[in-house]
Amino acid sequence: MKGANVMRTLALASLACGFCWGQAASDCKPSTLNIPGAQYPCVYSDNRVTLRVMAPDAKQVQVRMAGTHNMTRGADGAWTVTTPPQVVGFHYYNLVVDGAQVADPATYTFFGSGWLNSGIEIPEKTGGEYYQAQNVPHGDTRLQWYFSKVTQKWRRCFIYTPPGYNTSKAKYPVLYLMHGWGEDETGWHIQGHADYILDNLIAAKKAKPMLIVMDNLNAAKPGEDASLFNARGFGGPAPAKPEPGRAPGAAAGRGASPFGANFGATFTEMMFTDLIPMAENNYRVLAGRENRAMAGLSMGGMQTFTTTLANLDRFAYIGGFSGSSGGPGRGGATWDPKTASGGVYADPAAFNKKVKVLFLGIGSVEGPNTKNFSDALTKAGIKNVYFESPGTAHEWLTWRRCLNDFAPRLFK
Amino acid sequence: MKGANVMRTLALASLACGFCWGQAASDCKPSTLNIPGAQYPCVYSDNRVTLRVMAPDAKQVQVRMAGTHNMTRGADGAWTVTTPPQVVGFHYYNLVVDGAQVADPATYTFFGSGWLNSGIEIPEKTGGEYYQAQNVPHGDTRLQWYFSKVTQKWRRCFIYTPPGYNTSKAKYPVLYLMHGWGEDETGWHIQGHADYILDNLIAAKKAKPMLIVMDNLNAAKPGEDASLFNARGFGGPAPAKPEPGRAPGAAAGRGASPFGANFGATFTEMMFTDLIPMAENNYRVLAGRENRAMAGLSMGGMQTFTTTLANLDRFAYIGGFSGSSGGPGRGGATWDPKTASGGVYADPAAFNKKVKVLFLGIGSVEGPNTKNFSDALTKAGIKNVYFESPGTAHEWLTWRRCLNDFAPRLFK
Repeated sequence: MKGANVMRTLALASLACGFCWGQAASDCKPSTLNIPGAQYPCVYSDNRVTLRVMAPDAKQVQVRMAGTHNMTRGADGAWTVTTPPQVVGFHYYNLVVDGAQVADPATYTFFGSGWLNSGIEIPEKTGGEYYQAQNVPHGDTRLQWYFSKVTQKWRRCFIYTPPGYNTSKAKYPVLYLMHGWGEDETGWHIQGHADYILDNLIAAKKAKPMLIVMDNLNAAKPGEDASLFNARGFGGPAPAKPEPGRAPGAAAGRGASPFGANFGATFTEMMFTDLIPMAENNYRVLAGRENRAMAGLSMGGMQTFTTTLANLDRFAYIGGFSGSSGGPGRGGATWDPKTASGGVYADPAAFNKKVKVLFLGIGSVEGPNTKNFSDALTKAGIKNVYFESPGTAHEWLTWRRCLNDFAPRLFK
Repeated sequence: MKGANVMRTLALASLACGFCWGQAASDCKPSTLNIPGAQYPCVYSDNRVTLRVMAPDAKQVQVRMAGTHNMTRGADGAWTVTTPPQVVGFHYYNLVVDGAQVADPATYTFFGSGWLNSGIEIPEKTGGEYYQAQNVPHGDTRLQWYFSKVTQKWRRCFIYTPPGYNTSKAKYPVLYLMHGWGEDETGWHIQGHADYILDNLIAAKKAKPMLIVMDNLNAAKPGEDASLFNARGFGGPAPAKPEPGRAPGAAAGRGASPFGANFGATFTEMMFTDLIPMAENNYRVLAGRENRAMAGLSMGGMQTFTTTLANLDRFAYIGGFSGSSGGPGRGGATWDPKTASGGVYADPAAFNKKVKVLFLGIGSVEGPNTKNFSDALTKAGIKNVYFESPGTAHEWLTWRRCLNDFAPRLFK
């Protein structure tokens, strides 16, 4: 409504229909992630996806969704394509319009790979109810600001409080739950549906009521390089060779080692100095390590292992979803339980007594590294839970399933 | 990280820089709404804006930001333009790449005109602190789900709770605050910064601590037309004449009268049946009309007047920001205080006793209608507050200023 009178614009609304699209085929259902009213992208029962975008003057329009799909121009200037069947779950995707990598204007946008992508949800045929809104009591999720002494900046986290929190006086245990590379504190709420998953588990009495604190992994002290989670293509040095086919930020960088420097250490320091005290001072939280869990996906899993294994006096529950602290499968490196992770596994009896749950989850399509790690831990006498999501890759459906399996194991 | 191993992708990150951009001119500061790391769009001290987008194969790229600006292609495939000085405040904008209207991938996205636009913030030279995070106690904002008996759907609203709410036992008054056409329940939090505005007013003891409930105007019963807030271009009938230059949804429609049918009535019924009971049952809320305010911007202001004027037994404070219930300036129609709005103004003494604050706000660039309405009300003996935001149009800076002026008048 920029600079316009609302009445005038609404009057115009009845005269023009510049971006109208025809109805989708009756057996192609609009994706649940579309903006209100958008018929495309739509998903067929066999998981093919049809997309449509207006680009009347373009000479090439492509969709990047598990590969690149060339769209075809219609007489009305709309480009369409139907993709092969997609894997079930949530997928980031984007369009390439004459070399410009952009989000599809027909969907809500999702922060991943450092920018606001489009997203599509390929529903599971059965069993997807656990991450969807059901007719059960719902908790709420809070956008909580706090000032970090460590980073000297205001930070925002999402905090899920379970049904009944607002009207009870009870105290609750806390799960600290981390996103992955290129994502932010919105990921577990928006892509992951952590709130629905816990609402449903709590209603079924499968999980204890708990708080979930979802923070942003990006924590840098003044002067530290904060670029790891940035859209690295935006603002870096000029490219030696433009690669227009690459998603903004998806695989561009400044050459720095992403896991070097103090990145994980700064987050851990910030967590102990700022985040946990804020949560425990502002919310009704049960104290002590047996009421505190940490888990994360991908890089967030690596952060989880880095933070918790060095601080077992503070955490009794640990979860890595498609990401942990490595193991024998990672690049063929030797993994020695006596020395790995600062020797935390060297005394299995002591470790098993302290760590109530050590959870390793992975999608079956992601490869054997996590299974190898789990087996090596078991061989070393370290109790652990290995969870494999059938038929899913390094994506949010794997991580929703991980959370759904992990949360019931907590605080028992 | 779709289908990819995080380690592999991060390794690639050091090899390629497909979308890297050069540094912005030193006196051009990245917009505060850019995604992390993005140097463009940037804003000069005289409010000119430079934008840059990679589109190596495009033949025309334009920016729609208070007019249409043709971008120029550089040898590296990046298109750039510097716009004339922009008005201060928040502006939706978008790109047109060979006829495809899309968001700029360099910024966060904002729900307006029915889709996820890009946004740019042109900072005020002085006086903008009130809507920015300051080193004061912060409330939190809750994403609250509730089931509507009226619409038979789960709905989400945002609820701001003031600093101290979590740790006190006090009860608070409530402001119900509505967005405008094509926006949703996220608008007042994300574009409007209602949380910062109240945090700062409360810290300065200018406003009473209060809750703010920010709901979605889109409320339709099963079978009712819910398209008013949709991106009307997406999914409607085929266009008689494509208009590629028009923003998706901005001025496309189905020909229905946007203010007809039961649209406002259904929202009012939903508000009384579902929303207010949910808020009052789940939050510590003071009962009674003198602890209940309603305000809104543009169409949300019209909804406010529709809802409150017919229900003065439930509301004592009313605010219309660039939108109300009309008046003599609107289309030259005769406005008669004896009969307008169901005759609610016919007895000025009774009205003035019931309505503690009747607030009419507007941007000075928007025209005289609101001032004319205020004058007509005054002439009819109806007390009202007229607030004019200097130099701003039908945009969010007008509405931030309205809220900043309106909130201190509440619940006194």
